[in-house]
Amino acid sequence: MSDSGRFELHPQLKKDSYLLGQFTLSQLLLINDRQFPWFVLVPRRNQIQEIYQLLETDQLQLWRESAQLSQVVMDIYTGDKLNVATIGNMVPQLHMHHVVRFKQDPCWPAPIWGKLPMVSYEQDEALVIQQQLASKLTSFETLPF
Amino acid sequence: MSDSGRFELHPQLKKDSYLLGQFTLSQLLLINDRQFPWFVLVPRRNQIQEIYQLLETDQLQLWRESAQLSQVVMDIYTGDKLNVATIGNMVPQLHMHHVVRFKQDPCWPAPIWGKLPMVSYEQDEALVIQQQLASKLTSFETLPF
Repeated sequence: MSDSGRFELHPQLKKDSYLLGQFTLSQLLLINDRQFPWFVLVPRRNQIQEIYQLLETDQLQLWRESAQLSQVVMDIYTGDKLNVATIGNMVPQLHMHHVVRFKQDPCWPAPIWGKLPMVSYEQDEALVIQQQLASKLTSFETLPF
Repeated sequence: MSDSGRFELHPQLKKDSYLLGQFTLSQLLLINDRQFPWFVLVPRRNQIQEIYQLLETDQLQLWRESAQLSQVVMDIYTGDKLNVATIGNMVPQLHMHHVVRFKQDPCWPAPIWGKLPMVSYEQDEALVIQQQLASKLTSFETLPF
């Protein structure tokens, strides 16, 4: 797979999220839906749709970033379950969902994708979440909204 | 997390699948639903619900097994997209779905979980799938049904 050219986040992901910052490999998005603590990792690699298409070193890095993010968001939100998924049927650019789930959330126990209209955060709230995560993540750089 | 005691597949997973065999770490299940090529990896570790709860060496092994399985099933079925996910809202035992998706499948583009009643394979068909995968997978041992 070619990886030439500057990485561009898919327009649909850009529209639906706040870009909180970046790890060594991936951008970290907060999906703009306050109904669920919903984070997405997007490896900054072009023309990749599936995890196994990444170089092996990138796969390893993605899993490290995913494991770190998973633990931090479960610690912050004390969720009942974490849903981790690469689906990408609508947005082909490889992106990995991390959704903290609660037995009282509006979709439990069903998966959340495509179920409910999104309910936006205020920008101040997204900023608080950004700061909260940044204080617990390592090898992570915040980016201004 | 404790890992003492013999590994036991969760009864719901056992009920819904054929156990095709095992990798170094994980059991490989074929979900008994002919509507989708749907495979599940279950690390043979007790009392683990989330990927990040595995030992780091086990996490690495899981991702290797996942990448190999992903590539093999996409090669065999020439799918349009692969959906890889750990959800586990209903069955807490850590299990990783790998679902080959087609633009003509009955759920596209929605995720498949909880959407349609399962449609069983004949056992002969499951056996053919087992042999097909076994011929392409490495470090994999088939188990009799």
